[in-house]
Amino acid sequence: SAPPTSSRLRVSGPCFVLQMLLIILFAAFVRYSPDPSPGLCSPQHNCSSRRNPGSGSYYLRSWNVHLQTLMGFGFLMVFLSRYSMESAATCFLVTAFAIQWALLIQGFLYSFRNGKIYMEARSMVRADFCAGAVLVSTGAVLGWGNPLRLLLLSLLEVPLFSANEYVLLHLMGVRDSGGSLTVHTFGAYFGLALSWSSREHRAHRTEQQRDTGHPPDVLAAVGTVCLWIFWPGFVSATVAAAEPWAELNMYVAMAASTLATFVMSPLLQRDRPCMRQVQDAAVAGAITMGMAGEMLLAPFGALVAGFLAGLIPPLSSRFLVPVFGRRPGIGDACGVHGAHGLPGVLGAMLGTLLAALATADAYGDRLQVAFPRVADGSRTATYQALCQLCALPVTLLLAVLGGSASG
Amino acid sequence: SAPPTSSRLRVSGPCFVLQMLLIILFAAFVRYSPDPSPGLCSPQHNCSSRRNPGSGSYYLRSWNVHLQTLMGFGFLMVFLSRYSMESAATCFLVTAFAIQWALLIQGFLYSFRNGKIYMEARSMVRADFCAGAVLVSTGAVLGWGNPLRLLLLSLLEVPLFSANEYVLLHLMGVRDSGGSLTVHTFGAYFGLALSWSSREHRAHRTEQQRDTGHPPDVLAAVGTVCLWIFWPGFVSATVAAAEPWAELNMYVAMAASTLATFVMSPLLQRDRPCMRQVQDAAVAGAITMGMAGEMLLAPFGALVAGFLAGLIPPLSSRFLVPVFGRRPGIGDACGVHGAHGLPGVLGAMLGTLLAALATADAYGDRLQVAFPRVADGSRTATYQALCQLCALPVTLLLAVLGGSASG
Amino acid sequence: SAPPTSSRLRVSGPCFVLQMLLIILFAAFVRYSPDPSPGLCSPQHNCSSRRNPGSGSYYLRSWNVHLQTLMGFGFLMVFLSRYSMESAATCFLVTAFAIQWALLIQGFLYSFRNGKIYMEARSMVRADFCAGAVLVSTGAVLGWGNPLRLLLLSLLEVPLFSANEYVLLHLMGVRDSGGSLTVHTFGAYFGLALSWSSREHRAHRTEQQRDTGHPPDVLAAVGTVCLWIFWPGFVSATVAAAEPWAELNMYVAMAASTLATFVMSPLLQRDRPCMRQVQDAAVAGAITMGMAGEMLLAPFGALVAGFLAGLIPPLSSRFLVPVFGRRPGIGDACGVHGAHGLPGVLGAMLGTLLAALATADAYGDRLQVAFPRVADGSRTATYQALCQLCALPVTLLLAVLGGSASG
Repeated sequence: SAPPTSSRLRVSGPCFVLQMLLIILFAAFVRYSPDPSPGLCSPQHNCSSRRNPGSGSYYLRSWNVHLQTLMGFGFLMVFLSRYSMESAATCFLVTAFAIQWALLIQGFLYSFRNGKIYMEARSMVRADFCAGAVLVSTGAVLGWGNPLRLLLLSLLEVPLFSANEYVLLHLMGVRDSGGSLTVHTFGAYFGLALSWSSREHRAHRTEQQRDTGHPPDVLAAVGTVCLWIFWPGFVSATVAAAEPWAELNMYVAMAASTLATFVMSPLLQRDRPCMRQVQDAAVAGAITMGMAGEMLLAPFGALVAGFLAGLIPPLSSRFLVPVFGRRPGIGDACGVHGAHGLPGVLGAMLGTLLAALATADAYGDRLQVAFPRVADGSRTATYQALCQLCALPVTLLLAVLGGSASG
Repeated sequence: SAPPTSSRLRVSGPCFVLQMLLIILFAAFVRYSPDPSPGLCSPQHNCSSRRNPGSGSYYLRSWNVHLQTLMGFGFLMVFLSRYSMESAATCFLVTAFAIQWALLIQGFLYSFRNGKIYMEARSMVRADFCAGAVLVSTGAVLGWGNPLRLLLLSLLEVPLFSANEYVLLHLMGVRDSGGSLTVHTFGAYFGLALSWSSREHRAHRTEQQRDTGHPPDVLAAVGTVCLWIFWPGFVSATVAAAEPWAELNMYVAMAASTLATFVMSPLLQRDRPCMRQVQDAAVAGAITMGMAGEMLLAPFGALVAGFLAGLIPPLSSRFLVPVFGRRPGIGDACGVHGAHGLPGVLGAMLGTLLAALATADAYGDRLQVAFPRVADGSRTATYQALCQLCALPVTLLLAVLGGSASG
Repeated sequence: SAPPTSSRLRVSGPCFVLQMLLIILFAAFVRYSPDPSPGLCSPQHNCSSRRNPGSGSYYLRSWNVHLQTLMGFGFLMVFLSRYSMESAATCFLVTAFAIQWALLIQGFLYSFRNGKIYMEARSMVRADFCAGAVLVSTGAVLGWGNPLRLLLLSLLEVPLFSANEYVLLHLMGVRDSGGSLTVHTFGAYFGLALSWSSREHRAHRTEQQRDTGHPPDVLAAVGTVCLWIFWPGFVSATVAAAEPWAELNMYVAMAASTLATFVMSPLLQRDRPCMRQVQDAAVAGAITMGMAGEMLLAPFGALVAGFLAGLIPPLSSRFLVPVFGRRPGIGDACGVHGAHGLPGVLGAMLGTLLAALATADAYGDRLQVAFPRVADGSRTATYQALCQLCALPVTLLLAVLGGSASG
């Protein structure tokens, strides 16, 4: 049952062409930045509160981001498909391509000077974020099993992701350091729209995706441990604050969302939660803190938000997935709607609420970190909240339109 | 074979009630500390020798501690039960609850000011230590398979653990930076006493725990790698010294204990050591260095101690487990006695010996780090050794009484 | 089928004797260095450009090195043998012995003063590098399944490795921060020569090594994720530069080599690449950057080199392994020739080329980091290139002679 030569070239040829194009474009445009990397603060951040700008600290944080991108997202995908190991290899292909492509596209947006892109460590982190969103989308369409289609998805999603991120963070001044909106919500709805717009594959897909064997559970255990360990570092990679509040918020939110899954799952299902559900809960709790993590001022807020987020994946897999399953259309291979999409929306709404309530009295010096534009007086808290609120439909619109068009 | 609704609510209900109580208590008492985190040095430490108190360094260390808590202990448990994946999910529930509960209890002990608990990064590390001890205890009773009982265990063990730690470290001035005594010995004997005091489950238990299939070995391999990598960082998270002696001591101790297992196992068993035994050896070697790691002045001491520690788990599983197995009572599902309990006791005795021998001549500046109270003249080396020695029966007493009462 | 007592003592006895000898030698010679560790810069480096010499930064880097040594190499081995879990335990034995033995041997070479070896954190990293080379060699002869032979291999290879490293880095002034030559090329050809010189085991071996079941794929997925995450830190552990160019070079090289495997594998094989091939590609890409990573000035060079490196493992397993398989002699149990040997040679040749082209104009301040002896005028770029070129035959000669003699 060896595929014929023409079929083999269908994967090999495009990979070769894309890599050659990337090499030529890199040769023409990309250089290393001659300045020592100034840390991870993006232009909009005020970095004066960063106490330890050395390379060690920086490196640690960039390392975190790699880890969570590849481990968190990679595992998420691996364990959700019957073809687990084959799709793992494909996910690495998609990641390897998305990173190179994102370095180019985001280089043009952020560090294009005198006809050259100056690459630095920060570029790598940005490219990892982008690859993360591509992997979330991949989760929704993983049953296709066709690397070529996933490469195409990656080719189209990277520019749209970068455009959305640029509009949100740089033009609208939205605060979203953990990527609740830019990474998870965008990635999830892009993937779902793409899945919906290519309906003809659905019948084939649903058969493949039900069977999960033993290795997924092992990987889910490994993956959950990694989420607990590394995700708090995800948000801290871009937060400029000296205080570890964002990490602590995420930490307690993940603890609460794990308990929430043990509350909700037994009510909806026959058995106690399996590792996969514990992992989904941790993911949902962490995503909800992606935007709000640096804004919350007391740990009980994170507990409440994490508890609510932990209720979403079991409810979604009980009520939404069967509804989708009956209607011809949206297939959600890896449950990205429950684990990434809805918690991202919840996080965005929480961020809006917190932005509206932000006052200099309550935040003190912390206001500079959480809402720099409010702190320097260039906008009011209400206007900031409006921006945060508008960011949600903008992201959803771009994701759904982009995904549908890609389909 | 779906459990009836009442049975499902037996897990769901208590989780809900406990989480709601925790949210209310957090809302009433817990706030973030407004000061930037002053690093990990507990009040008794002299931190002047710490060279790099920046957030990067701090964050790295707290990260380490998470990792080893969840990875080291989590895996330890996962791979020892036939119901490996189910118990992994339960372990996450226990961890998620124990962390929140420990944040509260330890907050009242250590950072209660003006009616509020001020939470900081240090609190998270302390809570992780506590969750580690709870997971060690869980290992002894894992065969029960009942999340509710494990939640109860956690509810009772966290205050006792915190009381023991407070008495030892703060009232008696015992040095135990790696938790040889406070985490491992306490956790192991609490779990064993609890297992003994709930004898009626024993017959059911022994049947379940003999069968170990393939995934445990895979996880043992992953877990051992993680132990080697991250455990040296466990001790360094609380050691205030600039020199990496504690890490180096632990590193060579783990190497020696691995060789010791290859010396002892073939004499006692038919086959060469499997990954699980290699993991137990690494755990035992590391635990022995938990207290003594910062006190040892030459690497051959760590080699000798590690070698002795590596002999314990095979001897224990050959001679002690069958003895326990014949007597009605103590079931030790995951071998925590050999891997945690006895090496912890060995480590405590080694620490006592080293404290008795501590002189300003031999230690020099290092004395300030290893025994600050001896260095500043407030107690003699002999008195410090007496304290270290008394800490062992205090811990054993509290653990055994607490575990029995809990049963 | 229990082995008789004499057979059991064959493993146990030598382990005991070796460990006792090591303890005696450590007691006689090894002490901790009283000075705080001055960072990782070897004597030949100019460390003035290092911005953050604190213990946090140092610790982070040493941690990286552990991780990649054990995780990268450990997994590499684990997943390539049918006896995967048994060989994992044996690999830990070999690692535990090699580390202690390397601490002694390298201590005599590098830090022997007044009759004592002064051990510091740097020694640990060096010992890890050495254990890495031993594990690469182990990969070529893993089918033997005899821990005793692997201990002997380790006993002989550690001094040869240290001698080769000392000659290359200290006498010849070769730049090889990532160990392209010293670790991977030396390890691979030592193992291959040893495998060739012990031909009589071949027939037995080939039967054992064909069957790879499911767990290897799971481990290959975990291992590849770890390679991606931690290998860029491997090179940075010894590079003294403030700019993260070496990491970035390695990062894009790994992305390109992953794509290259998806280009080449479908042309040579029936199926798309599996996780094992994706892992080999990442290893090959990273090794090629081991020497050249700190010398390359633009990312497209890393892309091209990574792409070429990614073509090697599929070509090697398609054309070289069957050739070796037909000739009586060289068995390469884990494909170390394709994944470690040839990419190491490619990396060395690339390093030579870059050294020949090094000019003060192109490199600027960077010259100080990449080629300190050229920067301070003590040798010309051509002479440096000659040194780099000569290092390859020296390494090959020592490795092949040593391996053959060991056989």
